[in-house]
Amino acid sequence: MTTTPPTITLDDVRDAAARLKGVAHRTPVLRSRTLDALVGAEVLLKCENFQRVGAFKFRGAYNAASRLAPEQLARGIAAYSSGNHAQAVALAARELGTTAVIVMPEDAPGSKRAATEGYGAEIVTYDRYTEDRVAVAEALAADRGLALIPPYEHPHVMAGQGTAALELLEEAGELDALLVPVGGGGLIAGSATAVKGLRPGTRIVGVEPEAGDDTKRSLEAGRRVEIPVPRTIADGQALHTPGELTFSVNRRLVDDIALVCDDEIRAAMRFAFERLKIVVEPSGATPLAALLSGRAGALPRRVGVIVSGGNIDTGRFAELCGGV
Amino acid sequence: MTTTPPTITLDDVRDAAARLKGVAHRTPVLRSRTLDALVGAEVLLKCENFQRVGAFKFRGAYNAASRLAPEQLARGIAAYSSGNHAQAVALAARELGTTAVIVMPEDAPGSKRAATEGYGAEIVTYDRYTEDRVAVAEALAADRGLALIPPYEHPHVMAGQGTAALELLEEAGELDALLVPVGGGGLIAGSATAVKGLRPGTRIVGVEPEAGDDTKRSLEAGRRVEIPVPRTIADGQALHTPGELTFSVNRRLVDDIALVCDDEIRAAMRFAFERLKIVVEPSGATPLAALLSGRAGALPRRVGVIVSGGNIDTGRFAELCGGV
Repeated sequence: MTTTPPTITLDDVRDAAARLKGVAHRTPVLRSRTLDALVGAEVLLKCENFQRVGAFKFRGAYNAASRLAPEQLARGIAAYSSGNHAQAVALAARELGTTAVIVMPEDAPGSKRAATEGYGAEIVTYDRYTEDRVAVAEALAADRGLALIPPYEHPHVMAGQGTAALELLEEAGELDALLVPVGGGGLIAGSATAVKGLRPGTRIVGVEPEAGDDTKRSLEAGRRVEIPVPRTIADGQALHTPGELTFSVNRRLVDDIALVCDDEIRAAMRFAFERLKIVVEPSGATPLAALLSGRAGALPRRVGVIVSGGNIDTGRFAELCGGV
Repeated sequence: MTTTPPTITLDDVRDAAARLKGVAHRTPVLRSRTLDALVGAEVLLKCENFQRVGAFKFRGAYNAASRLAPEQLARGIAAYSSGNHAQAVALAARELGTTAVIVMPEDAPGSKRAATEGYGAEIVTYDRYTEDRVAVAEALAADRGLALIPPYEHPHVMAGQGTAALELLEEAGELDALLVPVGGGGLIAGSATAVKGLRPGTRIVGVEPEAGDDTKRSLEAGRRVEIPVPRTIADGQALHTPGELTFSVNRRLVDDIALVCDDEIRAAMRFAFERLKIVVEPSGATPLAALLSGRAGALPRRVGVIVSGGNIDTGRFAELCGGV
């Protein structure tokens, strides 16, 4: 009988934390008396919306890029993303003194392109109606000799992303539960690895949008299942199936998945704005939505929450949360 | 020849800080690489939008209320305000185990009333078209034996408000300039007293909305002048004349006043939202507006900014900042 070694370990997350020191922000942990009173627990919010590029993605991208062999790093790195991972890889490249090429759909918002180019990356576009972005990116990487940094399917990416939870534990001490948004599953895989390694009794609860419950279904089925591409305002969580590597971690370490609907996400974004005075993007607000709506279930005493990102412009925010 | 003693001193601000310890939040000081690069200086943002009740006002209200004689405190306190000071006095009363009565216009927004009542205060309304709020509040206070806590015209209020700058200096060390929003003038009077007491070389720059430049004009005239009631989105700064006590401090200690227009304030609120991920109300955004627009003039190396408050609901924010 053989046992498969775990994809990542607590030591991998610790190594990532050492690499990120002085490069990534050690983001603040916020508390709110109002929130605690409303939900009946002590809530500790790890605010990755204050991370560089406005989201936790920088942690994984930098950790992975920094571990490339010097000659590979010098040739450059690449990624496919129209979201936070694009900016994360672009900034990681700049910090490491190399170049990045980001594959984005032709119709990506101008603000996303500008932000990515602002970090010095080259953008290569594809037609998302006729071309497959992975194929485009892989061909480009092969052609130019670039290292492709995936958004979650990589041990160094997962370990880097898990440093957010490691920092939270260092600052908060004992936690009875940790709520984490689930998209591709890298953030929760890294976070669960860190937390279960240090405090096995802490419950790890993932939060998905109702329409994008691929990880919940997969955990129930005991294997990765596919769902139709979800329609949800939580664009960072609109995936149709979990990652293979991330799922191999999450099936072992995630205790439960809570679901929230778009209206609950909007209410959580409003709460964050009006009461906490912070800007949270839809995907980043899903754990707060699960707490405020009661859909996270009965809460233990001390609950950690990863607020994963804050990248939303004022126009889109007004559209989602400006009405009465 | 006689000299008038100063209205407040550095020691008054220090005493206030001792009283506020463990009661007011020690708010975070934020930095932003993007902001520093844009304005060409090191900017340190003292974030009073994260203060209790969402604004610096709690510092002054609590300091003043906590110094009342025990029998006076037991009879209760009162204030007239439809803004942040109302909630500040309500919370100060609750923290000190007494009651507060707040005089508000009949047509004050329901959200302001609810927030103030949420802290346990009683609301007494008046008709702002036919009644004078000061007269209403003074009659009420006399009738019920309450101590009236003014929003800025009081040494303990000014000293309490100045603790924001004292904390900023403790954390930031040397500052070449400090930018502070000017409404009634209490925040800048207290802040200037703290800063000039500790580091006389630091320039104190007030920021007013163009339409509400009563303090700028008064400083130029060497006496308090009255302007028509200003129309500006910076509602916390829509005053028509400086306070008498605050002006007596500010004419000695304020080096300069910068002016900003409503569009510059809106741009600063958007910048705070999209780049800093924080919520800032119009009045609280005026110093950032002065920095970003260049209207604060040539900047020295290290600049402190008091971000005075973050009380704005998502509907009003969408109205002001949601358009393209």
